[in-house]
Amino acid sequence: MSNFSNRVTALLGIKYPIIQGGMIWASGWRLAAAVSNAGGLGVIGGGSMQPDLLREHIIKCKQATDKPFAVNLPLLYSGIDKQMEVLIQEEVPIIITSAGNPSTWTPLLKSKSRIVLHVVSSAKFAKKAEAAGCDAVIAEGFEAGGHNGREETTTLVLIPAVVKAVQLPVIAAGGIATGRQLFAVLSLGAEGVQMGTRFVASEEASSHPDFKKMVISAAEGDTQLSMKKLTPVRLLKNKFYHDVHAAEERGATSEELTTLLGKGRARKGMFDGDLNEGELEIGQVSALLDTILPASTIIENVWSEFQKACAKPFRNSAD
Amino acid sequence: MSNFSNRVTALLGIKYPIIQGGMIWASGWRLAAAVSNAGGLGVIGGGSMQPDLLREHIIKCKQATDKPFAVNLPLLYSGIDKQMEVLIQEEVPIIITSAGNPSTWTPLLKSKSRIVLHVVSSAKFAKKAEAAGCDAVIAEGFEAGGHNGREETTTLVLIPAVVKAVQLPVIAAGGIATGRQLFAVLSLGAEGVQMGTRFVASEEASSHPDFKKMVISAAEGDTQLSMKKLTPVRLLKNKFYHDVHAAEERGATSEELTTLLGKGRARKGMFDGDLNEGELEIGQVSALLDTILPASTIIENVWSEFQKACAKPFRNSAD
Repeated sequence: MSNFSNRVTALLGIKYPIIQGGMIWASGWRLAAAVSNAGGLGVIGGGSMQPDLLREHIIKCKQATDKPFAVNLPLLYSGIDKQMEVLIQEEVPIIITSAGNPSTWTPLLKSKSRIVLHVVSSAKFAKKAEAAGCDAVIAEGFEAGGHNGREETTTLVLIPAVVKAVQLPVIAAGGIATGRQLFAVLSLGAEGVQMGTRFVASEEASSHPDFKKMVISAAEGDTQLSMKKLTPVRLLKNKFYHDVHAAEERGATSEELTTLLGKGRARKGMFDGDLNEGELEIGQVSALLDTILPASTIIENVWSEFQKACAKPFRNSAD
Repeated sequence: MSNFSNRVTALLGIKYPIIQGGMIWASGWRLAAAVSNAGGLGVIGGGSMQPDLLREHIIKCKQATDKPFAVNLPLLYSGIDKQMEVLIQEEVPIIITSAGNPSTWTPLLKSKSRIVLHVVSSAKFAKKAEAAGCDAVIAEGFEAGGHNGREETTTLVLIPAVVKAVQLPVIAAGGIATGRQLFAVLSLGAEGVQMGTRFVASEEASSHPDFKKMVISAAEGDTQLSMKKLTPVRLLKNKFYHDVHAAEERGATSEELTTLLGKGRARKGMFDGDLNEGELEIGQVSALLDTILPASTIIENVWSEFQKACAKPFRNSAD
């Protein structure tokens, strides 16, 4: 298993089929370079970056690693044109798009010989990504942190559905932080994983230290998919979440929720460390985590456990 | 792999680590006996049965199979005393309890040498089941049909959490209908699976034929966890679901939802076949199903695919 390879490792030019989620306020050049240097695919979460800052992170990432890396851009924000311009100018080799229509940008990016991955929450959207010319899809289940699909399909059900629907390589996301989970989703037909929450709890993540501590303290049931009348988002249950939840229970409209959300909540929580009033996006798998580790150790641990699972897939069985 | 064995197959005296979910209005003696005869564990869903009817199903099941079978009883309904009395009198060997406190009935049942399994939605509840003296836990994720936990933890995250928390054998439930999914959850440390939705779409299920057809026609996103102000329940999106959803969006109270639900909705939908006004409980994995099969064929197919996964766990990989 020292030289594992499949379509995802070949496509992305990486040693391990492990992709770090591109997360706003968490994954800048430090985390991305650390993951790429450790043999995974590091991803700069460009969603929260103005074009100049994005360019700076890309340049620093190139200086810090000679391995492939990617930038993730959610397509739902204004300003996407300027961000894409930076990716093209700076020769970013791999681009991950999410939260939007894959046919908008994929043709241009493919004409520039970039590798394009698109994040989907259903087999239907995976087919659209395939038709748009994407190179692979990242199929993200309900348990994932941050913005999420309306179907609420969990990773265990989503991966077989997407694998059946498209010929493209499928990367599984949502609920994955361990080597046995990597093994499990590969056995469902995925050829790689994207892990977000696990890398928030890394030393190199730019998330506020207090937020990281709250992530590794979280227990089962401490996150909830929220704000479904706007764009569904999985949040840690803090004061802000409870304010939103109370409003929703009363039947608040989308306008009222937009007002309650206001501006800059995500930065306030995850980057500035206001654990009461900030928006704290994290996945369910936070319940399984209790350590903040260097990114390279995370990858070593996951791969070591994956190899053990390959050698002995089941617990207590004799066949 | 012809003689697979682990703690679950040994405990329950079954050939395959496959347990059929005990589902109201779907799993009477016919389905239970068919599953047990095929080498799984058949389960009579006793929740919807009055004591005399429950006794009749148990007696008929014993006549139809000489293999072990179980009865599932949700502990949240009144009349549970009379139902338990029937299980004790009729020497039912395996009892599955759900939706209640495992310490209420487990000591009595263990004093009668019965095997007791309890359904849980979290590691915390699994520990309670272990402390109560249960023999194994069934850990059921968010994607499951019917009544569901408030934590909303998905099977992919729940199984590692429960396996870590208890010494008891863990049976995975929620989102499982295929042999590769069986393989995946066993690799996470489960030692068996409980499948509900897959067996609703069986020839022997007593579910209305029109409901079975609707189940195999369902796509991703066609079910939703609903009525969270009462007891959360995963429903197929029919007219009744949309009525409930509209009321919830307006901020309906639990009292208003109770009135809207009324009496007998589950029977009306799943047994009588009123697909508009009835309550239709089913799991997300319905999206992966397109056939109604004999229970024995379901088990053969799952086991055959499981064996293929054992022989070649990953798609397109070279190591």
